[in-house]
Amino acid sequence: MFLLIVITSQSALVSKKLFQEQSPCRRFVLYYHDILFNGTDAANATSATVANKTRLGNFNFGMFVVFDDPMTIDDQLLSPPVARAQGFYFYDKKNEYNAWFAYTLVFNSSEYKGTLNIMEADLMPEKTRDLSVVGGTGDFFMARGIATLQTDNLQAKPLKNIGNKNPYNKYK
Amino acid sequence: MFLLIVITSQSALVSKKLFQEQSPCRRFVLYYHDILFNGTDAANATSATVANKTRLGNFNFGMFVVFDDPMTIDDQLLSPPVARAQGFYFYDKKNEYNAWFAYTLVFNSSEYKGTLNIMEADLMPEKTRDLSVVGGTGDFFMARGIATLQTDNLQAKPLKNIGNKNPYNKYK
Amino acid sequence: MFLLIVITSQSALVSKKLFQEQSPCRRFVLYYHDILFNGTDAANATSATVANKTRLGNFNFGMFVVFDDPMTIDDQLLSPPVARAQGFYFYDKKNEYNAWFAYTLVFNSSEYKGTLNIMEADLMPEKTRDLSVVGGTGDFFMARGIATLQTDNLQAKPLKNIGNKNPYNKYK
Repeated sequence: MFLLIVITSQSALVSKKLFQEQSPCRRFVLYYHDILFNGTDAANATSATVANKTRLGNFNFGMFVVFDDPMTIDDQLLSPPVARAQGFYFYDKKNEYNAWFAYTLVFNSSEYKGTLNIMEADLMPEKTRDLSVVGGTGDFFMARGIATLQTDNLQAKPLKNIGNKNPYNKYK
Repeated sequence: MFLLIVITSQSALVSKKLFQEQSPCRRFVLYYHDILFNGTDAANATSATVANKTRLGNFNFGMFVVFDDPMTIDDQLLSPPVARAQGFYFYDKKNEYNAWFAYTLVFNSSEYKGTLNIMEADLMPEKTRDLSVVGGTGDFFMARGIATLQTDNLQAKPLKNIGNKNPYNKYK
Repeated sequence: MFLLIVITSQSALVSKKLFQEQSPCRRFVLYYHDILFNGTDAANATSATVANKTRLGNFNFGMFVVFDDPMTIDDQLLSPPVARAQGFYFYDKKNEYNAWFAYTLVFNSSEYKGTLNIMEADLMPEKTRDLSVVGGTGDFFMARGIATLQTDNLQAKPLKNIGNKNPYNKYK
């Protein structure tokens, strides 16, 4: 699957005596690509299940996934990544799909060097979901703001292992 | 069990050119209710163990729990929830009970729509514990502040499965 | 192993009507000491593996560790701790060692009482890595800033169980 993310962030400049907020906000649009390890596709996989779902409900409650996903400026998996999203999510609702994320966007390009740190409930039934940017380093020193997440199906290809009931893995 | 939480937060307004801190702070008092899944009570349970405790000490070191708990404005489990607390905690001390939390308070009522994101060590032996509010969205856009946690035993009922040694499950 | 950490943080003062940023920044230099539980050394261990590594790559992808580590002002494990680092890390890269951290520094000394909350990708191949300070309580109320991490090998002793392939456990 891939997700569209729009990040609106604000960084801080610390001078000797003064703390100034930078304006205006920066905006990015990025796509991220996640391929959940199925046990045999290590060459392509970008994430793996660390703890299995529990028996609480039918929506993967407790399934815990660690990821290191490439992020691109368009929706093509094979475009050169401009950042990586490193972190985890888990499912946390017994009567529908719902998740919780914490991760770092790691930028290491000629344009940007630094990180953005993000955490939030991901209310999956909503078309767009806002996640909190709670900090950053480098070019994004002490950034704060919002990352807006949207699941993008436009370029979706059919899933091979559709039986795994992981909605984040529905398209890849 | 249920916990009393007092949240003092401060949100940010972003206008075209200016970043202003909102004053004064808002304060909430909320109760949250957690029922740990015991394998058979899926109808009532609001949390589940994702990774079992390790053998380091006798205080559940490493036990990892994911939750989606209703929050109410009084201490009654069956009051209409005004928010949900979605996230996780784990125990992390070998010689006493001590935990670490990260979660999102999801508000979706006529009064408030938005989220608050919280993370902190929970020093359980302390009567009240401050947790950091590190971000927010919607009505709590870029909120920061403190959530003060207090275990409330006043309305406690005896625990049925007292053998599980999970202090967060002592009362429900 | 032990790590050197330099924390540059900035706290907020909330007066009745005014939110002021405190200046100048505070700086700390602290060392933290981590001994991963090997199943028998409970007396000395300060961390334990909660979820095992997956089979994605050869760099512990998905291994999840909870810790409660003493922090000292020098590199001596037996110096009196001035703080504790409580939280978790996991490995998240399939082709090299790379980790992700979230933890709380808990200060409870005559000099400082309060906490700092930190989260970030830990890009282990880098000599120094900046982590985001995203919040705090007590003396560090609403702190923000940077924690700079550096693995310090100067005082390193040879590892006994070198076979466990946990680079964070290489020196202790």
